[in-house]
Amino acid sequence: MEFFPSSLDNLIDCFARLPGIGRKTAQRLAFFVLRLPKEEAAAFANAILEARESVRYCNICQNLTDGDICSVCASRKRDGSVICVVADPKDVAAIERARDFNGLYHVLHGVISPMNRVGPDDIKVKELLARVNRGGIAEVIMATNPDTEGEATAMYISRLLKPLGVKVTRLAYGIPVGSNLEYADEATLFRALEGRREM
Amino acid sequence: MEFFPSSLDNLIDCFARLPGIGRKTAQRLAFFVLRLPKEEAAAFANAILEARESVRYCNICQNLTDGDICSVCASRKRDGSVICVVADPKDVAAIERARDFNGLYHVLHGVISPMNRVGPDDIKVKELLARVNRGGIAEVIMATNPDTEGEATAMYISRLLKPLGVKVTRLAYGIPVGSNLEYADEATLFRALEGRREM
Repeated sequence: MEFFPSSLDNLIDCFARLPGIGRKTAQRLAFFVLRLPKEEAAAFANAILEARESVRYCNICQNLTDGDICSVCASRKRDGSVICVVADPKDVAAIERARDFNGLYHVLHGVISPMNRVGPDDIKVKELLARVNRGGIAEVIMATNPDTEGEATAMYISRLLKPLGVKVTRLAYGIPVGSNLEYADEATLFRALEGRREM
Repeated sequence: MEFFPSSLDNLIDCFARLPGIGRKTAQRLAFFVLRLPKEEAAAFANAILEARESVRYCNICQNLTDGDICSVCASRKRDGSVICVVADPKDVAAIERARDFNGLYHVLHGVISPMNRVGPDDIKVKELLARVNRGGIAEVIMATNPDTEGEATAMYISRLLKPLGVKVTRLAYGIPVGSNLEYADEATLFRALEGRREM
C-alpha cells in the first residue's frame, strides 16, 4: 500500500493489527480518524495512552482499576466474607449488571489450560489462596465458565480451598431463563433435572 | 458501563465511536490495547496524532499527501498532459494497483449529490478547472463511480471542461473481467453490447 501518504499507511497498519480488523476496515477507520476534528483525534490518542498507563490490577481482587484498589473492594456496602471467583474482568461486569451479588470478586485473568500452556501459576490462584488464608472469608463461589477449562479450573481451586475450612460453591447449571426446552442440549437438560427444586 | 475503570471506559467509548464498531467489538479492541507492550500502545497513539496532523491535500491534484505535493504529481515519469478525475483517494489507490495509468490524478473528495446537500462548490471542481485553464492538458478522463451521482458529476464537469478545448473521456462500461454473463444486470449488458469492439 504505497499509494497513501506514509503517515496514513502507518495508521492503517496500526488499525489492521487489532483483532478482527481486516485491511479494508482498517482503511475505513483510518479515513474516519483523518476527518475527525483535531481535538477528537487528540482525545482518542490520549485515551489509548491513558488507559495503557493507568489501568492496573486491584491489590485485593486483581480486577482492573485506575487506582490501587477497585471500586468494589473499596466499597463499604459490600459483604467482604463472600468471594466470587471469575476468569475475566468482563465476567465481573456481567455479574454486576445482574445487580444481585453483594460480595467481593477475585479475577483469575485466565483459566488453567494445558493445551495453551497455561498452568495454575500463570493465573491469579496464589493471590486467592493468600486472601482466604488471611481469614474472614466464609464462602468462595466458583463462577468460571461452564466449559471444560472453566470446570477444571474450578475443581482445581476448590481442592486447594477446602482444606482451609472455607465453603466452596459453584454457579447453578440449568436451562437459561427465556430459552426453549426444544433447543436445550442434553448435558444442560441432564443438569437441570438433576438440580430440580421443589416448587 | 460503570464496571470498568474510567480510563478503560473512556477508551471503549472512543473505539465505539468509530464507524461499524459496536459496543462489544469496542470492548474487545480496548482490552487488546491494554495488553499491548507500552511502546506499541504509544506508537498507536502517535500514529493517530501524526496522521491527523501531517496528512493534507496535494497542492496540485488534491490527493492525500504528507508534504505539499503528492508522490504522483512529484514524479517526473508521469504524463502531465492526462488527468484522471476520481471521487476519492481510495480510487487513486485502486487505479494505481492496476499499474496501467501513467498520467496524473485529480481527487474531487466527493460527488455532487443534491440529496446530501453536496453541490459543485463542496467538491474540488474549481481546482480542476484552474488546472486545465493553466494549459498543457490534452485529456481529462472522468473516472467517478458508474452510479447516478458519479454519472451526474462526470456529466456536469465534462460540460464545464469542453469549452476549454480539452478532450473529455469516460471509463468504459461493460461486463467485469472474470464475471458471469448469467448474473450481469441488464443495464450493464446493454452497455456492453453498445460498446462492443471488433476482434
